[in-house]
Amino acid sequence: MNLFDSNNVSKHLDHVRIVMVNTTLPANIGSALRAMKTMGLSKLVLVAPKTYPHPDIDALAAGAQDLIEKIEIVETLEQAIQDCHMVFGTSARSRTIPWPLLDVRPAAKEALNAATKQQNIAIVFGREDRGLTNEELALANYHLTIPVNPEYGVLNVAQAIQVICYELRMAALEQNTQIQDKPDDHMQLKQQQSMEWDEPLVTQQQMEQFYPHLEKMLTEIEFLDPNNPRLLPLRLRRLFGRIQLDRMEYHLLRGIFSRVQALAQGSWKKTNTEDHNHD
Amino acid sequence: MNLFDSNNVSKHLDHVRIVMVNTTLPANIGSALRAMKTMGLSKLVLVAPKTYPHPDIDALAAGAQDLIEKIEIVETLEQAIQDCHMVFGTSARSRTIPWPLLDVRPAAKEALNAATKQQNIAIVFGREDRGLTNEELALANYHLTIPVNPEYGVLNVAQAIQVICYELRMAALEQNTQIQDKPDDHMQLKQQQSMEWDEPLVTQQQMEQFYPHLEKMLTEIEFLDPNNPRLLPLRLRRLFGRIQLDRMEYHLLRGIFSRVQALAQGSWKKTNTEDHNHD
Repeated sequence: MNLFDSNNVSKHLDHVRIVMVNTTLPANIGSALRAMKTMGLSKLVLVAPKTYPHPDIDALAAGAQDLIEKIEIVETLEQAIQDCHMVFGTSARSRTIPWPLLDVRPAAKEALNAATKQQNIAIVFGREDRGLTNEELALANYHLTIPVNPEYGVLNVAQAIQVICYELRMAALEQNTQIQDKPDDHMQLKQQQSMEWDEPLVTQQQMEQFYPHLEKMLTEIEFLDPNNPRLLPLRLRRLFGRIQLDRMEYHLLRGIFSRVQALAQGSWKKTNTEDHNHD
Repeated sequence: MNLFDSNNVSKHLDHVRIVMVNTTLPANIGSALRAMKTMGLSKLVLVAPKTYPHPDIDALAAGAQDLIEKIEIVETLEQAIQDCHMVFGTSARSRTIPWPLLDVRPAAKEALNAATKQQNIAIVFGREDRGLTNEELALANYHLTIPVNPEYGVLNVAQAIQVICYELRMAALEQNTQIQDKPDDHMQLKQQQSMEWDEPLVTQQQMEQFYPHLEKMLTEIEFLDPNNPRLLPLRLRRLFGRIQLDRMEYHLLRGIFSRVQALAQGSWKKTNTEDHNHD
């Protein structure tokens, strides 16, 4: 399995364009480019931007120069979406007439699903101050919302683009995984946690040598009374059982137990460090 | 089911604090506040910010004045997280030794799961130019990453906070749904994973006494050379950091350390069990 087959992921994300309508602040265009590139999107279409070009765009797009060169400027939203199969209009609230409304997560899944079928998808963002008009929203197949704090729903356009590009990438990664993997519960859990560990984890079988060693050591330092262990062995199992030790940690801890045992048995004595400073 | 019971959602999100370390640009603090408030988070802790206060913070935090008033300023990361039970350090890449690493989505689920149990959670963000130091990252239970375009992973701190706050809100909404819904398969899995614990978990502050004790004990049995500790202290932090000790386990382990110390110092001697069989 290769979760990060970026070829497939970026190939699908290339089918999704971001469309910004009548943007006023160049900084928002720059931030959008950066958000897009970070998440692997590449195509930005500007519908009649108020200020373009502008040095703020380049400044905020830091390193996304290739995306700046690919920006497309058009006069109307119709032009921006004419070759698209699926159009999402972003909207903070529902308008005059109800429209098919999707939260950003299911919307991103829909979009990527369409992208794998070679369809073109547009996500359309409105003006900083008043979003998209009803006429513009009516050009969309779906309206898309981001679930925000109902008492303070003032995500700005750059932040909204960030969240949506992130969800598009997550959907693309998920799609890619589904294509490459057989579904399997354990596997899915593994992926969710996506730990890249440097050492293999020890098996239950190895742990069955670990606990007796720990208990023997504790018995030798008279911390554990084998005739009346009470809950101590159980608590130690619960404690170390929930870490999942890796091989190095396992040997490290067993090394400590052995040192303590040697100390308790008198077979190992501390060096007198005062006398051995020259070591 | 009421997906938008904002009382419950915000109550849980109140347990999650955002921590920004040594932030240089006030605009990033302002953007962070806006992102937080939009997603229903309320507590920002600044560790030694370079410029504070500053009008840019207020400008970019547009309308999040209540959050500005609640900002806490501290000198060290330790102070920022001392009453936290679970700490996530954000990191673009893995460092000296791998740490339990979670993508933002499962991390947000973990965090909200802990929040429902009244635990305090911190998500820690580093400097604009070079993130968190290895020492700071070692204070975290988990490292958190955002899956970005491997060829261009330059999400800035404000964008990263936006994505994480969004995922926290999504996790809170999901949790809220699960609590209100009838149990189903998914729910049962959840319950299995998040069983009720019988003892309160210890805080980061308590763990800051735990590690020095462990290291001192290991030094006394000459398992650890304080002049050449190599990766041992870091490995032990990683190990015990991912268990999340409860209060009883904490005292149990510290009791063992003290016993071993007494043995090493000769202030405690084994009873001769041969002679005391009649006990």
